[in-house]
Amino acid sequence: MSTEMEIICVGNELLIGKTLNTNATWMAKLATSLGVEVRRITVVSDDVDEIAEATVEALERKSQFVITTGGLGPTFDDKTLEGIAKALRRKLEANEKALKMVKEKYEAYAKEGRMEKVDLTPPRVKMAMFPEGAEPLCNSVGTAPGVLIEAKGAFLIALPGVPSEMKVIFEESVVPLLKKQAGDLTFFETSIFADSIMESTLAPLIDKVMHDNACVYIKSHPKGEENIPHIELHFSTTAKGSRTGKSRLGEAIIQLSELIERNGGKVRIQGRKQ
Amino acid sequence: MSTEMEIICVGNELLIGKTLNTNATWMAKLATSLGVEVRRITVVSDDVDEIAEATVEALERKSQFVITTGGLGPTFDDKTLEGIAKALRRKLEANEKALKMVKEKYEAYAKEGRMEKVDLTPPRVKMAMFPEGAEPLCNSVGTAPGVLIEAKGAFLIALPGVPSEMKVIFEESVVPLLKKQAGDLTFFETSIFADSIMESTLAPLIDKVMHDNACVYIKSHPKGEENIPHIELHFSTTAKGSRTGKSRLGEAIIQLSELIERNGGKVRIQGRKQ
Repeated sequence: MSTEMEIICVGNELLIGKTLNTNATWMAKLATSLGVEVRRITVVSDDVDEIAEATVEALERKSQFVITTGGLGPTFDDKTLEGIAKALRRKLEANEKALKMVKEKYEAYAKEGRMEKVDLTPPRVKMAMFPEGAEPLCNSVGTAPGVLIEAKGAFLIALPGVPSEMKVIFEESVVPLLKKQAGDLTFFETSIFADSIMESTLAPLIDKVMHDNACVYIKSHPKGEENIPHIELHFSTTAKGSRTGKSRLGEAIIQLSELIERNGGKVRIQGRKQ
Repeated sequence: MSTEMEIICVGNELLIGKTLNTNATWMAKLATSLGVEVRRITVVSDDVDEIAEATVEALERKSQFVITTGGLGPTFDDKTLEGIAKALRRKLEANEKALKMVKEKYEAYAKEGRMEKVDLTPPRVKMAMFPEGAEPLCNSVGTAPGVLIEAKGAFLIALPGVPSEMKVIFEESVVPLLKKQAGDLTFFETSIFADSIMESTLAPLIDKVMHDNACVYIKSHPKGEENIPHIELHFSTTAKGSRTGKSRLGEAIIQLSELIERNGGKVRIQGRKQ
Protein backbone atom coordinates (compact mmCIF):
# COMPACT_ATOMS: atom_id res chain seq x y z
CA MET A 1 0.00 0.00 0.00
CA SER A 2 1.33 3.42 -0.85
CA THR A 3 2.03 6.03 1.80
CA GLU A 4 -0.32 8.98 1.43
CA MET A 5 -0.11 12.56 2.62
CA GLU A 6 -2.33 15.60 2.75
CA ILE A 7 -1.11 19.16 3.17
CA ILE A 8 -3.15 21.90 4.85
CA CYS A 9 -1.82 25.44 4.45
CA VAL A 10 -3.17 28.02 6.87
CA GLY A 11 -2.98 31.72 6.09
CA ASN A 12 -5.09 34.59 4.81
CA GLU A 13 -2.07 35.76 2.79
CA LEU A 14 -2.52 32.69 0.56
CA LEU A 15 -6.24 33.32 0.05
CA ILE A 16 -5.87 37.00 -0.86
CA GLY A 17 -3.21 36.16 -3.44
CA LYS A 18 -0.46 38.02 -1.58
CA THR A 19 1.79 34.97 -1.20
CA LEU A 20 2.51 32.15 -3.65
CA ASN A 21 2.14 28.78 -1.96
CA THR A 22 5.76 27.73 -2.33
CA ASN A 23 5.57 25.78 0.95
CA ALA A 24 3.07 23.27 -0.44
CA THR A 25 5.06 22.81 -3.65
CA TRP A 26 8.32 22.31 -1.76
CA MET A 27 6.84 19.72 0.60
CA ALA A 28 4.97 17.94 -2.19
CA LYS A 29 8.11 17.65 -4.30
CA LEU A 30 10.21 16.28 -1.46
CA ALA A 31 7.54 13.84 -0.25
CA THR A 32 6.92 12.64 -3.82
CA SER A 33 10.63 12.00 -4.33
CA LEU A 34 10.47 9.65 -1.34
CA GLY A 35 7.66 7.60 -2.92
CA VAL A 36 4.87 9.28 -0.93
CA GLU A 37 1.62 10.12 -2.73
CA VAL A 38 0.32 13.61 -1.96
CA ARG A 39 -3.46 13.27 -2.22
CA ARG A 40 -4.67 16.78 -1.56
CA ILE A 41 -3.54 20.30 -0.71
CA THR A 42 -6.04 22.52 1.12
CA VAL A 43 -5.61 26.22 1.84
CA VAL A 44 -7.75 27.77 4.58
CA SER A 45 -7.85 31.09 6.41
CA ASP A 46 -6.61 31.97 9.90
CA ASP A 47 -9.91 30.86 11.41
CA VAL A 48 -10.24 28.21 14.12
CA ASP A 49 -13.33 26.60 12.61
CA GLU A 50 -11.91 26.52 9.07
CA ILE A 51 -8.70 24.91 10.34
CA ALA A 52 -10.63 22.41 12.46
CA GLU A 53 -12.93 21.50 9.58
CA ALA A 54 -10.07 20.96 7.12
CA THR A 55 -8.24 18.82 9.68
CA VAL A 56 -11.26 16.63 10.40
CA GLU A 57 -11.87 16.13 6.68
CA ALA A 58 -8.24 15.25 5.97
CA LEU A 59 -8.12 12.72 8.82
CA GLU A 60 -11.35 11.14 7.55
CA ARG A 61 -9.75 10.56 4.15
CA LYS A 62 -7.22 8.35 5.96
CA SER A 63 -3.87 9.50 4.65
CA GLN A 64 -1.12 8.37 7.02
CA PHE A 65 0.33 11.89 7.12
CA VAL A 66 -1.49 15.18 7.48
CA ILE A 67 0.90 18.13 7.51
CA THR A 68 -0.15 21.69 8.27
CA THR A 69 1.93 24.82 7.71
CA GLY A 70 1.39 28.26 9.16
CA GLY A 71 -0.29 29.64 12.25
CA LEU A 72 2.14 28.54 14.98
CA GLY A 73 3.54 31.95 15.91
CA PRO A 74 2.86 34.32 18.81
CA THR A 75 0.21 36.63 17.30
CA PHE A 76 -3.56 36.52 17.76
CA ASP A 77 -4.08 35.13 14.26
CA ASP A 78 -1.81 32.12 14.77
CA LYS A 79 -4.64 29.68 15.40
CA THR A 80 -3.55 26.36 13.96
CA LEU A 81 -3.08 24.55 17.27
CA GLU A 82 -6.43 25.80 18.52
CA GLY A 83 -8.00 24.50 15.29
CA ILE A 84 -6.29 21.12 15.59
CA ALA A 85 -7.31 20.81 19.26
CA LYS A 86 -10.89 21.49 18.23
CA ALA A 87 -10.70 18.93 15.42
CA LEU A 88 -9.40 16.25 17.81
CA ARG A 89 -11.58 17.35 20.74
CA ARG A 90 -8.50 17.66 22.89
CA LYS A 91 -7.63 20.46 25.27
CA LEU A 92 -4.76 22.87 24.75
CA GLU A 93 -2.24 22.69 27.57
CA ALA A 94 1.21 24.07 28.24
CA ASN A 95 3.55 21.39 26.87
CA GLU A 96 6.51 21.19 29.23
CA LYS A 97 9.07 20.17 26.61
CA ALA A 98 7.86 22.85 24.20
CA LEU A 99 7.89 25.49 26.92
CA LYS A 100 11.50 24.57 27.69
CA MET A 101 12.39 24.91 23.99
CA VAL A 102 10.72 28.33 23.75
CA LYS A 103 12.34 29.51 26.98
CA GLU A 104 15.79 28.42 25.82
CA LYS A 105 15.31 30.37 22.58
CA TYR A 106 14.50 33.57 24.47
CA GLU A 107 17.44 32.99 26.83
CA ALA A 108 19.67 32.76 23.78
CA TYR A 109 18.12 35.95 22.35
CA ALA A 110 18.77 37.69 25.70
CA LYS A 111 22.42 36.60 25.63
CA GLU A 112 22.71 38.08 22.14
CA GLY A 113 21.44 41.36 23.59
CA ARG A 114 18.13 41.34 21.73
CA MET A 115 16.11 41.63 24.91
CA GLU A 116 16.86 42.80 28.42
CA LYS A 117 15.36 39.91 30.36
CA VAL A 118 13.63 36.66 29.51
CA ASP A 119 9.97 37.36 30.05
CA LEU A 120 7.61 34.51 29.13
CA THR A 121 4.71 36.79 28.16
CA PRO A 122 1.41 35.22 27.07
CA PRO A 123 2.26 35.53 23.31
CA ARG A 124 5.47 33.58 24.01
CA VAL A 125 3.84 30.91 26.16
CA LYS A 126 1.19 30.58 23.43
CA MET A 127 3.76 28.92 21.13
CA ALA A 128 4.00 26.05 23.67
CA MET A 129 0.23 25.60 24.17
CA PHE A 130 -0.21 22.23 22.47
CA PRO A 131 -3.14 19.84 22.11
CA GLU A 132 -2.93 17.13 24.80
CA GLY A 133 -0.63 14.26 23.89
CA ALA A 134 1.42 16.26 21.36
CA GLU A 135 5.20 16.18 21.05
CA PRO A 136 7.30 19.21 20.07
CA LEU A 137 9.62 19.05 17.06
CA CYS A 138 12.81 21.10 17.38
CA ASN A 139 12.88 24.33 15.34
CA SER A 140 16.57 25.02 14.94
CA VAL A 141 16.15 28.31 13.03
CA GLY A 142 13.14 29.95 14.70
CA THR A 143 11.18 30.15 17.93
CA ALA A 144 7.93 28.18 17.54
CA PRO A 145 8.48 24.39 17.76
CA GLY A 146 6.76 22.06 15.30
CA VAL A 147 4.07 19.75 16.67
CA LEU A 148 3.63 16.00 16.22
CA ILE A 149 0.37 14.30 17.18
CA GLU A 150 -0.59 10.69 16.57
CA ALA A 151 -4.33 10.71 16.03
CA LYS A 152 -6.87 8.53 14.23
CA GLY A 153 -4.17 6.32 12.73
CA ALA A 154 -2.28 9.25 11.24
CA PHE A 155 0.71 11.40 12.01
CA LEU A 156 -0.70 14.91 12.26
CA ILE A 157 2.21 17.35 12.06
CA ALA A 158 2.01 21.14 12.38
CA LEU A 159 4.89 23.19 10.95
CA PRO A 160 5.50 26.95 10.93
CA GLY A 161 4.67 28.98 7.81
CA VAL A 162 8.03 30.75 7.57
CA PRO A 163 9.69 28.75 4.75
CA SER A 164 13.14 28.42 6.37
CA GLU A 165 11.59 27.11 9.61
CA MET A 166 9.14 24.80 7.83
CA LYS A 167 11.93 23.33 5.71
CA VAL A 168 14.36 22.60 8.51
CA ILE A 169 11.74 20.86 10.68
CA PHE A 170 10.43 18.93 7.66
CA GLU A 171 13.92 17.73 6.75
CA GLU A 172 15.00 16.93 10.30
CA SER A 173 11.81 15.46 11.75
CA VAL A 174 9.30 14.61 9.00
CA VAL A 175 11.52 13.05 6.32
CA PRO A 176 12.71 10.25 8.66
CA LEU A 177 9.09 9.34 9.44
CA LEU A 178 8.16 9.39 5.75
CA LYS A 179 11.11 7.18 4.84
CA LYS A 180 10.19 4.69 7.54
CA GLN A 181 6.63 4.43 6.16
CA ALA A 182 7.36 4.58 2.45
CA GLY A 183 10.20 2.06 2.58
CA ASP A 184 12.61 2.04 -0.34
CA LEU A 185 10.27 3.43 -2.99
CA THR A 186 11.53 6.24 -5.20
CA PHE A 187 9.75 8.52 -7.64
CA PHE A 188 11.33 8.80 -11.10
CA GLU A 189 10.39 11.52 -13.56
CA THR A 190 11.63 13.05 -16.75
CA SER A 191 10.23 15.18 -19.57
CA ILE A 192 10.58 15.34 -23.34
CA PHE A 193 9.11 18.02 -25.60
CA ALA A 194 7.03 17.67 -28.78
CA ASP A 195 6.84 20.30 -31.50
CA SER A 196 4.68 20.60 -34.61
CA ILE A 197 1.96 18.33 -33.28
CA MET A 198 -1.28 19.35 -31.58
CA GLU A 199 -2.25 18.07 -28.15
CA SER A 200 -5.43 16.57 -29.58
CA THR A 201 -3.33 14.55 -32.05
CA LEU A 202 -1.01 13.45 -29.26
CA ALA A 203 -3.88 12.27 -27.03
CA PRO A 204 -4.44 8.81 -28.60
CA LEU A 205 -0.67 8.25 -28.87
CA ILE A 206 -0.26 8.86 -25.12
CA ASP A 207 -3.20 6.52 -24.47
CA LYS A 208 -1.48 3.76 -26.40
CA VAL A 209 1.90 4.15 -24.66
CA MET A 210 0.29 4.26 -21.20
CA HIS A 211 -1.70 1.15 -22.08
CA ASP A 212 1.49 -0.67 -23.11
CA ASN A 213 3.49 0.61 -20.09
CA ALA A 214 1.12 0.09 -17.19
CA CYS A 215 3.33 1.56 -14.44
CA VAL A 216 4.24 4.76 -16.27
CA TYR A 217 2.13 7.91 -16.03
CA ILE A 218 2.39 10.39 -18.89
CA LYS A 219 0.97 13.87 -18.76
CA SER A 220 1.03 16.49 -21.48
CA HIS A 221 1.53 20.16 -20.61
CA PRO A 222 0.98 22.65 -23.46
CA LYS A 223 3.74 25.26 -23.26
CA GLY A 224 3.55 26.96 -26.63
CA GLU A 225 1.88 30.14 -27.67
CA GLU A 226 -1.41 30.29 -29.49
CA ASN A 227 -0.23 29.21 -32.87
CA ILE A 228 2.93 27.26 -32.17
CA PRO A 229 2.30 23.95 -30.44
CA HIS A 230 5.11 23.06 -28.02
CA ILE A 231 4.12 20.39 -25.55
CA GLU A 232 5.97 19.06 -22.53
CA LEU A 233 5.43 15.34 -22.00
CA HIS A 234 6.13 14.42 -18.40
CA PHE A 235 6.82 10.75 -17.66
CA SER A 236 6.78 9.42 -14.10
CA THR A 237 6.80 6.15 -12.19
CA THR A 238 7.33 5.01 -8.61
CA ALA A 239 9.61 1.99 -8.26
CA LYS A 240 11.79 0.15 -5.76
CA GLY A 241 15.04 0.13 -7.72
CA SER A 242 16.70 2.84 -9.77
CA ARG A 243 17.25 0.40 -12.64
CA THR A 244 13.57 -0.57 -12.77
CA GLY A 245 12.40 3.03 -12.60
CA LYS A 246 14.73 4.32 -15.27
CA SER A 247 14.22 1.46 -17.70
CA ARG A 248 10.44 1.78 -17.40
CA LEU A 249 10.65 5.49 -18.31
CA GLY A 250 13.16 4.80 -21.09
CA GLU A 251 10.95 2.27 -22.82
CA ALA A 252 7.90 4.53 -22.69
CA ILE A 253 9.88 7.52 -23.99
CA ILE A 254 11.24 5.57 -26.96
CA GLN A 255 7.80 4.26 -27.90
CA LEU A 256 6.09 7.66 -27.65
CA SER A 257 8.90 9.44 -29.51
CA GLU A 258 8.56 7.02 -32.43
CA LEU A 259 4.79 7.48 -32.53
CA ILE A 260 5.12 11.28 -32.46
CA GLU A 261 7.59 11.33 -35.34
CA ARG A 262 5.47 8.90 -37.33
CA ASN A 263 2.60 11.43 -36.91
CA GLY A 264 4.59 14.38 -38.19
CA GLY A 265 5.79 15.77 -34.87
CA LYS A 266 9.32 16.50 -33.68
CA VAL A 267 10.77 15.39 -30.36
CA ARG A 268 13.30 17.35 -28.34
CA ILE A 269 15.01 16.44 -25.10
CA GLN A 270 15.02 20.04 -23.89
CA GLY A 271 12.20 22.56 -23.84
CA ARG A 272 12.23 25.72 -25.90
CA LYS A 273 12.85 28.90 -24.02
CA GLN A 274 9.53 30.64 -23.37
CA MET B 1 -23.32 39.79 2.78
CA SER B 2 -19.94 39.34 1.25
CA THR B 3 -19.43 37.49 -2.02
CA GLU B 4 -17.47 34.28 -1.43
CA MET B 5 -15.44 32.09 -3.76
CA GLU B 6 -13.70 28.75 -3.63
CA ILE B 7 -11.00 27.63 -6.03
CA ILE B 8 -10.40 24.00 -6.98
CA CYS B 9 -7.17 23.28 -8.87
CA VAL B 10 -7.00 19.97 -10.71
CA GLY B 11 -3.67 18.45 -11.69
CA ASN B 12 -1.18 15.81 -10.59
CA GLU B 13 1.61 18.25 -11.50
CA LEU B 14 0.55 20.39 -8.52
CA LEU B 15 0.52 17.43 -6.11
CA ILE B 16 3.96 16.11 -7.12
CA GLY B 17 5.49 19.56 -6.65
CA LYS B 18 6.35 19.94 -10.35
CA THR B 19 4.31 23.12 -10.81
CA LEU B 20 3.84 26.10 -8.49
CA ASN B 21 0.16 26.95 -8.14
CA THR B 22 0.39 30.39 -9.70
CA ASN B 23 -3.15 30.04 -11.11
CA ALA B 24 -4.73 30.00 -7.65
CA THR B 25 -2.68 32.98 -6.49
CA TRP B 26 -3.49 35.00 -9.61
CA MET B 27 -7.24 34.33 -9.33
CA ALA B 28 -7.28 34.93 -5.58
CA LYS B 29 -5.52 38.27 -5.95
CA LEU B 30 -7.84 39.50 -8.67
CA ALA B 31 -11.01 38.30 -6.95
CA THR B 32 -9.88 39.82 -3.63
CA SER B 33 -9.22 43.17 -5.33
CA LEU B 34 -12.89 43.16 -6.40
CA GLY B 35 -14.08 42.72 -2.81
CA VAL B 36 -14.66 38.94 -3.10
CA GLU B 37 -13.64 36.74 -0.18
CA VAL B 38 -11.75 33.60 -1.25
CA ARG B 39 -12.68 31.03 1.38
CA ARG B 40 -10.68 28.00 0.35
CA ILE B 41 -8.28 26.67 -2.29
CA THR B 42 -8.28 22.90 -2.87
CA VAL B 43 -5.82 20.98 -5.04
CA VAL B 44 -6.79 17.51 -6.23
CA SER B 45 -5.41 14.96 -8.69
CA ASP B 46 -6.61 14.11 -12.21
CA ASP B 47 -9.11 11.64 -10.81
CA VAL B 48 -12.86 11.75 -11.47
CA ASP B 49 -13.82 10.82 -7.90
CA GLU B 50 -11.42 13.29 -6.30
CA ILE B 51 -12.70 16.10 -8.54
CA ALA B 52 -16.33 15.15 -7.87
CA GLU B 53 -15.77 14.98 -4.11
CA ALA B 54 -14.03 18.36 -3.96
CA THR B 55 -16.82 19.91 -6.06
CA VAL B 56 -19.59 18.50 -3.85
CA GLU B 57 -17.81 19.72 -0.72
CA ALA B 58 -17.24 23.21 -2.12
CA LEU B 59 -20.89 23.56 -3.18
CA GLU B 60 -22.01 22.41 0.28
CA ARG B 61 -20.01 25.24 1.86
CA LYS B 62 -22.24 27.63 -0.10
CA SER B 63 -19.82 30.08 -1.69
CA GLN B 64 -21.53 31.86 -4.58
CA PHE B 65 -18.60 31.07 -6.89
CA VAL B 66 -16.74 27.80 -7.27
CA ILE B 67 -13.99 28.05 -9.88
CA THR B 68 -11.99 25.07 -11.11
CA THR B 69 -8.81 25.21 -13.20
CA GLY B 70 -7.21 22.43 -15.18
CA GLY B 71 -8.43 19.24 -16.81
CA LEU B 72 -10.39 20.64 -19.78
CA GLY B 73 -8.06 19.52 -22.57
CA PRO B 74 -8.21 16.67 -25.07
CA THR B 75 -6.12 14.01 -23.28
CA PHE B 76 -7.33 11.01 -21.24
CA ASP B 77 -6.33 12.70 -17.97
CA ASP B 78 -8.44 15.81 -18.57
CA LYS B 79 -11.31 14.72 -16.34
CA THR B 80 -12.69 17.85 -14.74
CA LEU B 81 -15.99 17.91 -16.63
CA GLU B 82 -16.55 14.23 -15.92
CA GLY B 83 -15.90 14.95 -12.24
CA ILE B 84 -18.27 17.92 -12.19
CA ALA B 85 -20.97 15.92 -14.00
CA LYS B 86 -20.62 13.22 -11.35
CA ALA B 87 -20.80 15.79 -8.54
CA LEU B 88 -24.00 17.29 -9.98
CA ARG B 89 -25.46 13.94 -11.10
CA ARG B 90 -25.83 15.32 -14.58
CA LYS B 91 -24.98 13.57 -17.82
CA LEU B 92 -22.20 14.67 -20.15
CA GLU B 93 -23.50 15.62 -23.56
CA ALA B 94 -22.10 17.24 -26.67
CA ASN B 95 -22.79 20.95 -26.13
CA GLU B 96 -23.75 22.42 -29.50
CA LYS B 97 -22.33 25.90 -28.88
CA ALA B 98 -19.11 24.48 -27.49
CA LEU B 99 -18.75 22.07 -30.39
CA LYS B 100 -19.14 25.00 -32.79
CA MET B 101 -16.40 26.91 -30.91
CA VAL B 102 -14.03 23.92 -31.02
CA LYS B 103 -14.77 23.29 -34.70
CA GLU B 104 -14.10 26.94 -35.60
CA LYS B 105 -10.76 26.75 -33.81
CA TYR B 106 -9.67 23.74 -35.84
CA GLU B 107 -10.91 25.37 -39.03
CA ALA B 108 -8.70 28.34 -38.22
CA TYR B 109 -5.75 26.02 -37.49
CA ALA B 110 -6.34 24.31 -40.86
CA LYS B 111 -6.31 27.69 -42.63
CA GLU B 112 -2.99 28.46 -40.97
CA GLY B 113 -1.68 25.20 -42.41
CA ARG B 114 -1.28 23.43 -39.09
CA MET B 115 -3.50 20.53 -40.17
CA GLU B 116 -4.61 19.16 -43.51
CA LYS B 117 -8.30 18.80 -42.84
CA VAL B 118 -10.62 19.53 -39.95
CA ASP B 119 -11.23 16.17 -38.37
CA LEU B 120 -13.35 16.22 -35.21
CA THR B 121 -11.65 13.20 -33.61
CA PRO B 122 -12.92 11.95 -30.23
CA PRO B 123 -10.20 13.86 -28.28
CA ARG B 124 -11.38 17.07 -29.98
CA VAL B 125 -15.08 16.41 -29.44
CA LYS B 126 -14.23 15.63 -25.81
CA MET B 127 -13.52 19.32 -25.17
CA ALA B 128 -17.19 20.05 -25.97
CA MET B 129 -18.67 17.25 -23.84
CA PHE B 130 -20.29 19.34 -21.11
CA PRO B 131 -22.52 18.51 -18.16
CA GLU B 132 -26.18 19.06 -19.11
CA GLY B 133 -27.28 22.67 -18.80
CA ALA B 134 -23.78 24.14 -19.06
CA GLU B 135 -22.82 27.18 -21.12
CA PRO B 136 -19.46 27.55 -22.91
CA LEU B 137 -17.21 30.56 -22.19
CA CYS B 138 -15.14 31.77 -25.14
CA ASN B 139 -11.42 30.87 -24.98
CA SER B 140 -9.83 33.46 -27.23
CA VAL B 141 -6.27 32.13 -26.92
CA GLY B 142 -6.71 28.33 -26.85
CA THR B 143 -8.99 25.52 -27.96
CA ALA B 144 -10.96 24.25 -24.95
CA PRO B 145 -13.82 26.58 -23.99
CA GLY B 146 -14.48 27.44 -20.34
CA VAL B 147 -17.67 26.10 -18.78
CA LEU B 148 -20.33 27.91 -16.75
CA ILE B 149 -22.95 25.98 -14.79
CA GLU B 150 -25.52 27.39 -12.40
CA ALA B 151 -25.98 24.75 -9.74
CA LYS B 152 -27.11 24.66 -6.10
CA GLY B 153 -27.27 28.44 -5.89
CA ALA B 154 -23.72 28.89 -7.13
CA PHE B 155 -21.89 29.75 -10.32
CA LEU B 156 -19.70 26.72 -10.96
CA ILE B 157 -17.08 27.71 -13.52
CA ALA B 158 -14.44 25.44 -15.08
CA LEU B 159 -11.38 27.08 -16.63
CA PRO B 160 -8.36 25.57 -18.43
CA GLY B 161 -5.10 25.04 -16.53
CA VAL B 162 -2.87 26.75 -19.10
CA PRO B 163 -2.31 30.13 -17.40
CA SER B 164 -2.77 32.32 -20.51
CA GLU B 165 -6.10 30.61 -21.30
CA MET B 166 -7.30 30.64 -17.68
CA LYS B 167 -6.49 34.34 -17.37
CA VAL B 168 -8.23 35.51 -20.52
CA ILE B 169 -11.45 33.62 -19.75
CA PHE B 170 -11.36 34.80 -16.14
CA GLU B 171 -10.94 38.42 -17.18
CA GLU B 172 -13.49 38.32 -20.00
CA SER B 173 -16.19 36.12 -18.48
CA VAL B 174 -15.70 35.71 -14.72
CA VAL B 175 -14.76 39.24 -13.65
CA PRO B 176 -18.07 40.73 -14.92
CA LEU B 177 -20.03 38.14 -12.90
CA LEU B 178 -17.93 38.84 -9.78
CA LYS B 179 -18.39 42.59 -10.13
CA LYS B 180 -22.13 42.18 -10.48
CA GLN B 181 -22.29 40.14 -7.24
CA ALA B 182 -19.72 42.04 -5.19
CA GLY B 183 -21.07 45.47 -6.05
CA ASP B 184 -18.76 48.40 -5.55
CA LEU B 185 -16.60 46.93 -2.78
CA THR B 186 -12.85 47.23 -3.08
CA PHE B 187 -10.03 45.59 -1.16
CA PHE B 188 -7.34 47.96 0.14
CA GLU B 189 -3.98 46.74 1.39
CA THR B 190 -0.58 48.08 2.25
CA SER B 191 2.45 46.99 4.25
CA ILE B 192 4.95 48.60 6.59
CA PHE B 193 8.05 46.93 8.04
CA ALA B 194 9.25 46.75 11.64
CA ASP B 195 12.89 46.25 12.65
CA SER B 196 14.54 45.62 16.00
CA ILE B 197 11.40 44.26 17.63
CA MET B 198 10.43 40.61 18.04
CA GLU B 199 7.12 39.25 16.74
CA SER B 200 6.16 38.17 20.25
CA THR B 201 6.62 41.76 21.45
CA LEU B 202 4.58 43.06 18.52
CA ALA B 203 1.69 40.66 19.16
CA PRO B 204 -0.10 42.66 21.92
CA LEU B 205 0.47 45.93 20.00
CA ILE B 206 -1.27 44.48 16.94
CA ASP B 207 -4.09 43.25 19.16
CA LYS B 208 -4.61 46.76 20.50
CA VAL B 209 -4.64 48.44 17.08
CA MET B 210 -7.03 45.84 15.64
CA HIS B 211 -9.29 46.33 18.64
CA ASP B 212 -9.32 50.10 18.08
CA ASN B 213 -9.76 49.78 14.29
CA ALA B 214 -12.47 47.16 13.94
CA CYS B 215 -12.55 47.01 10.11
CA VAL B 216 -8.80 46.70 9.60
CA TYR B 217 -7.04 43.34 9.53
CA ILE B 218 -3.34 43.32 10.42
CA LYS B 219 -1.11 40.32 9.88
CA SER B 220 2.58 40.04 10.73
CA HIS B 221 4.94 38.16 8.42
CA PRO B 222 8.45 37.50 9.79
CA LYS B 223 10.91 38.13 6.98
CA GLY B 224 14.22 38.37 8.77
CA GLU B 225 16.90 35.82 9.28
CA GLU B 226 17.42 33.94 12.50
CA ASN B 227 18.96 36.72 14.55
CA ILE B 228 17.72 39.87 12.87
CA PRO B 229 13.99 40.47 13.29
CA HIS B 230 12.46 42.15 10.25
CA ILE B 231 8.70 41.87 10.16
CA GLU B 232 6.25 42.83 7.44
CA LEU B 233 2.99 44.19 8.82
CA HIS B 234 0.23 43.84 6.25
CA PHE B 235 -2.86 46.03 6.72
CA SER B 236 -6.05 45.34 4.79
CA THR B 237 -9.69 46.35 4.68
CA THR B 238 -12.63 45.99 2.32
CA ALA B 239 -14.61 49.18 1.83
CA LYS B 240 -17.03 50.88 -0.55
CA GLY B 241 -15.10 54.07 -1.20
CA SER B 242 -11.44 54.68 -1.80
CA ARG B 243 -11.41 57.49 0.75
CA THR B 244 -12.89 55.27 3.47
CA GLY B 245 -10.53 52.39 2.71
CA LYS B 246 -7.40 54.49 2.65
CA SER B 247 -8.19 56.55 5.72
CA ARG B 248 -8.97 53.41 7.71
CA LEU B 249 -5.59 51.94 6.80
CA GLY B 250 -3.82 55.26 7.44
CA GLU B 251 -5.18 55.59 10.97
CA ALA B 252 -4.23 52.04 11.90
CA ILE B 253 -0.73 52.46 10.44
CA ILE B 254 -0.07 55.64 12.40
CA GLN B 255 -1.26 54.07 15.67
CA LEU B 256 0.78 50.90 15.26
CA SER B 257 3.91 52.79 14.14
CA GLU B 258 3.77 54.92 17.28
CA LEU B 259 3.35 51.85 19.49
CA ILE B 260 6.27 50.07 17.80
CA GLU B 261 8.61 53.03 18.26
CA ARG B 262 7.53 53.45 21.87
CA ASN B 263 8.54 49.78 22.38
CA GLY B 264 12.01 50.22 20.91
CA GLY B 265 11.29 49.12 17.34
CA LYS B 266 11.91 50.97 14.09
CA VAL B 267 9.34 51.39 11.32
CA ARG B 268 10.14 51.49 7.61
CA ILE B 269 7.87 52.02 4.65
CA GLN B 270 9.85 49.66 2.44
CA GLY B 271 11.12 46.16 3.19
CA ARG B 272 14.81 45.34 3.44
CA LYS B 273 16.21 43.44 0.52
CA GLN B 274 16.39 39.76 1.43
